[in-house]
Amino acid sequence: MDLETCLKKLKYIGVLAFATVDLEGAPQIRNISAIHYEKDAIYFFTARGKEFCRELLEDGRVQILGYSKYKEMIRLSSRAKQTAEEEQKKWMDLIFAEQPYLTNVYPGKTRDIGIIFEIRDAQIEYFHLGVSPIFRETYILGRGIETKQENAAEVEAGDVEPGKRRVRMKGYRITDACIGCGICQGSCPQKCIEPGVPYRIRPEHCLHCGNCYEHCPVSAVKRL
Amino acid sequence: MDLETCLKKLKYIGVLAFATVDLEGAPQIRNISAIHYEKDAIYFFTARGKEFCRELLEDGRVQILGYSKYKEMIRLSSRAKQTAEEEQKKWMDLIFAEQPYLTNVYPGKTRDIGIIFEIRDAQIEYFHLGVSPIFRETYILGRGIETKQENAAEVEAGDVEPGKRRVRMKGYRITDACIGCGICQGSCPQKCIEPGVPYRIRPEHCLHCGNCYEHCPVSAVKRL
Repeated sequence: MDLETCLKKLKYIGVLAFATVDLEGAPQIRNISAIHYEKDAIYFFTARGKEFCRELLEDGRVQILGYSKYKEMIRLSSRAKQTAEEEQKKWMDLIFAEQPYLTNVYPGKTRDIGIIFEIRDAQIEYFHLGVSPIFRETYILGRGIETKQENAAEVEAGDVEPGKRRVRMKGYRITDACIGCGICQGSCPQKCIEPGVPYRIRPEHCLHCGNCYEHCPVSAVKRL
Repeated sequence: MDLETCLKKLKYIGVLAFATVDLEGAPQIRNISAIHYEKDAIYFFTARGKEFCRELLEDGRVQILGYSKYKEMIRLSSRAKQTAEEEQKKWMDLIFAEQPYLTNVYPGKTRDIGIIFEIRDAQIEYFHLGVSPIFRETYILGRGIETKQENAAEVEAGDVEPGKRRVRMKGYRITDACIGCGICQGSCPQKCIEPGVPYRIRPEHCLHCGNCYEHCPVSAVKRL
């Protein structure tokens, strides 16, 4: 799996769930399909009067989720930005051409209430619960996303390109406090922990369920 | 459309998108299908080690979105609560029996890392963009949801039952400042504004796009 394939899959899925936070800090979620995909960016349409638009203008943080027919989950985290004034019409016309149903929803000049947002820098997580062991991977679009979290040196891939941000790691890791007892391995539903001192979680197969974390007798398992 | 049918539709859709806010106040979204439906409540399973679980325990606010094959969007807003200790096993076993794939993900005793949350009080929005005019309606499960928003008297249905909260209204309304010019009606993509003084938006067909709001020459259109 790779970034380009993930974006293609999102495009084929078509109708995606967009999560934002509202003015009260509460989660909001909508289905959006008025989307155009470029190799390095995603453009989407909404109307200026919608609360969704206000949330994007005032906060901007968005997570986008697609679920494929192959039971893959593809999740994109980003900050949406309003597209430059002089490019609004170009992308709006393109999205309306690609999604003819939009002309039924916004006939004639009423589409002028529309606004185009774009996503250029994002983190994309691929997650497949239907294989054994489960599989996950994370990719960076553009410069990735800002994060307050600092990742431990040992979980950094170490191959971050200049100008790119790190992948925000999630899940668990086993620290040097490990005594090699193997209890974590026995408690892992996905059998994704390898022996050694310290034992090692294979992050691409980890559910992030916390079983190893709860069972470790010496608290050697840390949350990332 | 009604509450009971909406819950049935969510059940048939199966895989729903759950939005929460994380510890940084950012939106988070996941697909969840480990769900059991009762007439008056929804129970769902996750693992104690997941960030999703932590977000539910620390904040609890959740929006759940389902998209049907008939292109209906059903959105539930609520506050998830951890199910009572003595009922955890009962619902967990039921969810695992109803969703056999879960036993592949959490074999044997590893399911003990699970935790059951429940939703009893919610607001449910039904939205269909594929009909003309578009159609939307809102229902209350249990006591509904808390809201900081006060709705104008004229948009209240006036039929709130004792012990229930109001539906949180969204969109726009036309106030008595209306001069009856009809510009709003001409600008409405869904032709859902009726003549009169004041003109009236039929809320069940309103996109919430904001066209009437932006075009009214006397600012008689207000956001709810």
